[in-house]
Amino acid sequence: MHLEEIVTVLEEIAPPELAEDFDIGRIGLTLDLQNDVNKIAVALDPTDYVLNRAAMIGADLLITHHTRIFHAVNCISKELADSLKIALDNGISLYSMHTNFDKAKGGINDALAKRLGLSQIMEVPIGRIGKITPCSTETFVNHVAKCLNTHVQYTGNREEISTVMVFGGSGFRTQYIEAAREYGADAYVSSEIKHDVIRSYSDMVLVDATHYATENPGMQDLCPVIAERLKLDVEFIDHDPLIRTL
Amino acid sequence: MHLEEIVTVLEEIAPPELAEDFDIGRIGLTLDLQNDVNKIAVALDPTDYVLNRAAMIGADLLITHHTRIFHAVNCISKELADSLKIALDNGISLYSMHTNFDKAKGGINDALAKRLGLSQIMEVPIGRIGKITPCSTETFVNHVAKCLNTHVQYTGNREEISTVMVFGGSGFRTQYIEAAREYGADAYVSSEIKHDVIRSYSDMVLVDATHYATENPGMQDLCPVIAERLKLDVEFIDHDPLIRTL
Amino acid sequence: MHLEEIVTVLEEIAPPELAEDFDIGRIGLTLDLQNDVNKIAVALDPTDYVLNRAAMIGADLLITHHTRIFHAVNCISKELADSLKIALDNGISLYSMHTNFDKAKGGINDALAKRLGLSQIMEVPIGRIGKITPCSTETFVNHVAKCLNTHVQYTGNREEISTVMVFGGSGFRTQYIEAAREYGADAYVSSEIKHDVIRSYSDMVLVDATHYATENPGMQDLCPVIAERLKLDVEFIDHDPLIRTL
Amino acid sequence: MHLEEIVTVLEEIAPPELAEDFDIGRIGLTLDLQNDVNKIAVALDPTDYVLNRAAMIGADLLITHHTRIFHAVNCISKELADSLKIALDNGISLYSMHTNFDKAKGGINDALAKRLGLSQIMEVPIGRIGKITPCSTETFVNHVAKCLNTHVQYTGNREEISTVMVFGGSGFRTQYIEAAREYGADAYVSSEIKHDVIRSYSDMVLVDATHYATENPGMQDLCPVIAERLKLDVEFIDHDPLIRTL
Amino acid sequence: MHLEEIVTVLEEIAPPELAEDFDIGRIGLTLDLQNDVNKIAVALDPTDYVLNRAAMIGADLLITHHTRIFHAVNCISKELADSLKIALDNGISLYSMHTNFDKAKGGINDALAKRLGLSQIMEVPIGRIGKITPCSTETFVNHVAKCLNTHVQYTGNREEISTVMVFGGSGFRTQYIEAAREYGADAYVSSEIKHDVIRSYSDMVLVDATHYATENPGMQDLCPVIAERLKLDVEFIDHDPLIRTL
Amino acid sequence: MHLEEIVTVLEEIAPPELAEDFDIGRIGLTLDLQNDVNKIAVALDPTDYVLNRAAMIGADLLITHHTRIFHAVNCISKELADSLKIALDNGISLYSMHTNFDKAKGGINDALAKRLGLSQIMEVPIGRIGKITPCSTETFVNHVAKCLNTHVQYTGNREEISTVMVFGGSGFRTQYIEAAREYGADAYVSSEIKHDVIRSYSDMVLVDATHYATENPGMQDLCPVIAERLKLDVEFIDHDPLIRTL
Repeated sequence: MHLEEIVTVLEEIAPPELAEDFDIGRIGLTLDLQNDVNKIAVALDPTDYVLNRAAMIGADLLITHHTRIFHAVNCISKELADSLKIALDNGISLYSMHTNFDKAKGGINDALAKRLGLSQIMEVPIGRIGKITPCSTETFVNHVAKCLNTHVQYTGNREEISTVMVFGGSGFRTQYIEAAREYGADAYVSSEIKHDVIRSYSDMVLVDATHYATENPGMQDLCPVIAERLKLDVEFIDHDPLIRTL
Repeated sequence: MHLEEIVTVLEEIAPPELAEDFDIGRIGLTLDLQNDVNKIAVALDPTDYVLNRAAMIGADLLITHHTRIFHAVNCISKELADSLKIALDNGISLYSMHTNFDKAKGGINDALAKRLGLSQIMEVPIGRIGKITPCSTETFVNHVAKCLNTHVQYTGNREEISTVMVFGGSGFRTQYIEAAREYGADAYVSSEIKHDVIRSYSDMVLVDATHYATENPGMQDLCPVIAERLKLDVEFIDHDPLIRTL
Repeated sequence: MHLEEIVTVLEEIAPPELAEDFDIGRIGLTLDLQNDVNKIAVALDPTDYVLNRAAMIGADLLITHHTRIFHAVNCISKELADSLKIALDNGISLYSMHTNFDKAKGGINDALAKRLGLSQIMEVPIGRIGKITPCSTETFVNHVAKCLNTHVQYTGNREEISTVMVFGGSGFRTQYIEAAREYGADAYVSSEIKHDVIRSYSDMVLVDATHYATENPGMQDLCPVIAERLKLDVEFIDHDPLIRTL
Repeated sequence: MHLEEIVTVLEEIAPPELAEDFDIGRIGLTLDLQNDVNKIAVALDPTDYVLNRAAMIGADLLITHHTRIFHAVNCISKELADSLKIALDNGISLYSMHTNFDKAKGGINDALAKRLGLSQIMEVPIGRIGKITPCSTETFVNHVAKCLNTHVQYTGNREEISTVMVFGGSGFRTQYIEAAREYGADAYVSSEIKHDVIRSYSDMVLVDATHYATENPGMQDLCPVIAERLKLDVEFIDHDPLIRTL
Repeated sequence: MHLEEIVTVLEEIAPPELAEDFDIGRIGLTLDLQNDVNKIAVALDPTDYVLNRAAMIGADLLITHHTRIFHAVNCISKELADSLKIALDNGISLYSMHTNFDKAKGGINDALAKRLGLSQIMEVPIGRIGKITPCSTETFVNHVAKCLNTHVQYTGNREEISTVMVFGGSGFRTQYIEAAREYGADAYVSSEIKHDVIRSYSDMVLVDATHYATENPGMQDLCPVIAERLKLDVEFIDHDPLIRTL
Repeated sequence: MHLEEIVTVLEEIAPPELAEDFDIGRIGLTLDLQNDVNKIAVALDPTDYVLNRAAMIGADLLITHHTRIFHAVNCISKELADSLKIALDNGISLYSMHTNFDKAKGGINDALAKRLGLSQIMEVPIGRIGKITPCSTETFVNHVAKCLNTHVQYTGNREEISTVMVFGGSGFRTQYIEAAREYGADAYVSSEIKHDVIRSYSDMVLVDATHYATENPGMQDLCPVIAERLKLDVEFIDHDPLIRTL
């Protein structure tokens, strides 16, 4: 199937116009080989490990959440040249769906909500809100860690948690947490919590479940969707950043 | 002693001109009551807990690392009004030393390096670099957690760690880590690590020891210095954000 | 009555969306104590004299035309701290209606037009235009001085004045005066006239009746309106700047 | 004498590099006819009245304080065309010295200080400071009005006035008044006072002696200086804006 | 006929709102003498040659494609003064229609397309596209040179040229050429081709027929249109820049 | 020889700090393969033709005047991918020296002056000025065309040409031409002349000798210099844009 036809379908799954303004130029074909595609690889990041693995399984297209060239470049460094060489030598086009796929139906946030077993999932301007069988803060945090198979950091305490907001990736921004508060969330699951947020929002349970663990499910769940829509072989490549705690 | 005289000394300890550009307007007297000062409180953040505690111990001046009004305001919210009322009712001026105290001799970064037992401590444009008895990654990370009395998150692996860079607070920025690499650091201790950094710097041991635990020592160590210089009663107020891991 | 309910009514009287762009952040609750309000004070400026007087009469809310913090601040000076202390110690919230109240029906400009006895008052994009019994320039200027109880400065001459434009406060801007010309005004009453305007508009009678005297009526007339709408005790506090001429 | 030679002398009298940044493009030859100059006219503003008068007296160059084209233009309006025609038909080049002449030795501010009979005149970054025989506020204000032959507006009161700061033109800006305070001025003479300044500086005597009357002396005093330096016929053209008070 | 009435008609012929953003302030009356107009001159540029010629034929209005004051000015140079004097002494108002007339129906681009004998002329967002009897590159380029009476520079080669895009003036910008490609153009006629364009678009025949020769026809063809609409005497003034090749 | 050592020498030949501000990010290694270099290719542009030819002759480094990625990119198009593939597959690093090499001693401008046989060549802030045996405009223009083996366009006429300014590439900017006038040039040789320049500078002979023909000599002359300095095999690759005139 020609790359162009695939892009049409990917844009239906994650419409580029949903992306945040700061993502301009980072959504879509970030390496466009105009090639025919028989096999698609999907991953969170286009690391060299992932690119080599994609080459090994014979993929012609790699779809990732994060883009390879974040800041636009005039010069190509050795590291970038090495990455590009893997892609070029193996005829692998690159496609990136980022904040547009966060918000998309069935995207990052939906997958995260589903993985945590939320019910009555509702789309809010930012992330998703849902219900969980009422439980204590400790029980809830354990549940998150287990569902996402990750360590977590958390702060705040509520006697009973029943309403939960989730946002995959780096979502502990003032505007987002205030939305969570407005929607009556008892807990908010996201990642990359910072000191000023911990200080300012002691009235809610904030669970930092790592960027990787909150976004990876969305990319995993994308695979069967694409396979079904395109009738092509699709394979997920997992690259765990292996962050450890003590 | 009049507030103005104290400010003169504080500006010798942490010269305002050392501050980063983004700190313009946030360094110095953030609440200037032009009062006489008999007792000084020192803390990391001017939270209401800290302000109340400062009032209780009879402080006339509270010196913190972070400022109370981060984004300039035209309107005073209920939360800010409540904070200001504690300070105004108890005659407590507020003084903030931030990125200028990070870099200052004996400041945040020096205190952090000292707390970790580094030797041959050298000032670099960003943070401090020092030596440690060569040890494994695991031993080193344990050492950090124990010295700073905190949980840590870490990534990367080195057979032997002997050169260490430290930066109190949020220091995992590209420019800083590349400086660490250039200076031959095996490990870099700072806080608030993000996914893109974990992905890009797998060749170094990065230890996220929390914003609080990497900056608090600097403010603690400031107390005896001020007391000695001003011959005034100085007391540290600790407010642990109580972030937990699982 | 709770402050929030009062704000709802004030926003009906002077809709914030009518404000000029440069007023962003300066309209509404500029000190929000979320308190219950039994008595309201109204004044042109929130000076310390006015704040002390508001405290003396037991006001819980002070509504002014001008705001207290004009340029947003990170640091609170002694002067501002003193003002805030009066408000905080006496539980007085502050509310500001500025360019939105200039334009509002029954606002600054309407009150000024009414005070000058204009008839057929018409709202124009800027200020108000109305008719006066035809009279000489001298007679008109005397009338303005007497109605507003102020000294005036004026320039230009017309044999007969019958159409008058008014704009409370600092309204001698090019764009405004050209509007006056377009609407056929013989005279324009406003304040803070500058040299370049005097030079450029010699074909119209321009009357500078001071900022204070052209805006004070609007705040005075606001009192009975609020009292009627809210069924609360409302008192006007006059603070004349006492500018003298020679 | 060729225009270029004259410009050289004028730039010695009022060095363009003394001008404020906002004056960029407005200092120097604003109409450059590269002509020979036998007679020079000097005035405060290049109004049509002044231009016609300059033509009548046979001037080849008109030196003014204010420029004719304040905001840069792509299109020439009827009013500007009419002004230019007078200058072009009569071969009159235009030269403007503004904020550079405010500050220059013997310029606007020096002339104003001299006209008020100040002694021990000192140049400060803004305007001039000098001494006057100690007198009451009333006596001082009367003195100003008489010396400058103008009406004045004033505010504030001091028992005794002996130190005076002056600034010709629109000088009641926060930064300037604070400088006056710092230099120990009892009174500050300038023009175009505004409401917020009156409110904020009640501790000093502020005398608004009009833009025209505070700047005109500087241009008058320029005439003999130029005549002496260039050995050319120089004539001052007075154009009083005729602002009246009541 | 009064100038204002003429402007109304000119704005129907070339609606100012069609102009590009960079043309703000450069469209319309660039010298507005508010005069009565009996004769109109039209030219490509308001050079002194053209202005003198317009004076000689007794024109009261000169309409040009390019404006006289491209960058807004505060100061009038000798050159500009000389030009203005011709216009002012002879009572000639100036009117400029630029990018609005490029796009207008019957404007620069339409005239160019017509001069080249294109059929099925279609308005595209940029320029015009049309058909020509299929011919070789050489034949086509000769045809262009002959129709526009100019030397040309060209690059690229196509066996057969039948679809042609034209844009009067400086039209070899990336965005425009890509539009040409999208619309299936075999050749693109415009002017001021640059090296980077020659390098990037070798797959199309690009003909640089000079700025003058591609825009002059549009101004010529404007004359009968205006004459017909206004029933006034209209005369075209040709000023060939006389660029030679070797 | 390692690439890094070569870069050190290239930076001596064309110091990057000489580059214009708009060239930031476009000077130096634009594809950095950190490879060992045995053979160097030099060309004006890194076109695919040049890249393929560089591969054919076994070059490990291609030095060009223009860069490949002019506007910084986040996404790699098919065209760019194809270019990069040639370079990556053949291990060819790319190095760009642009406005820094224009100005450098022995650079673009010096080579151009030398090719035209100028004597007493003097470096001016922009380009080079030199002397030529006095001749007519026609003779001079013929000389330029012959020396640079190109067609030319020219405008203006001088009876005798003896002083000549040259600037390789696109040098017909106002600022440059005015410099030429100030330095007493009779003729100015550069490229990409535009209509507004032709109109404004009729008093000088302006010769547009194409971007390619005025810059190519500089890159040719660079070859022996590099070969001598590095003792490596260096080969020039010529890619004529083949622009034709009629």
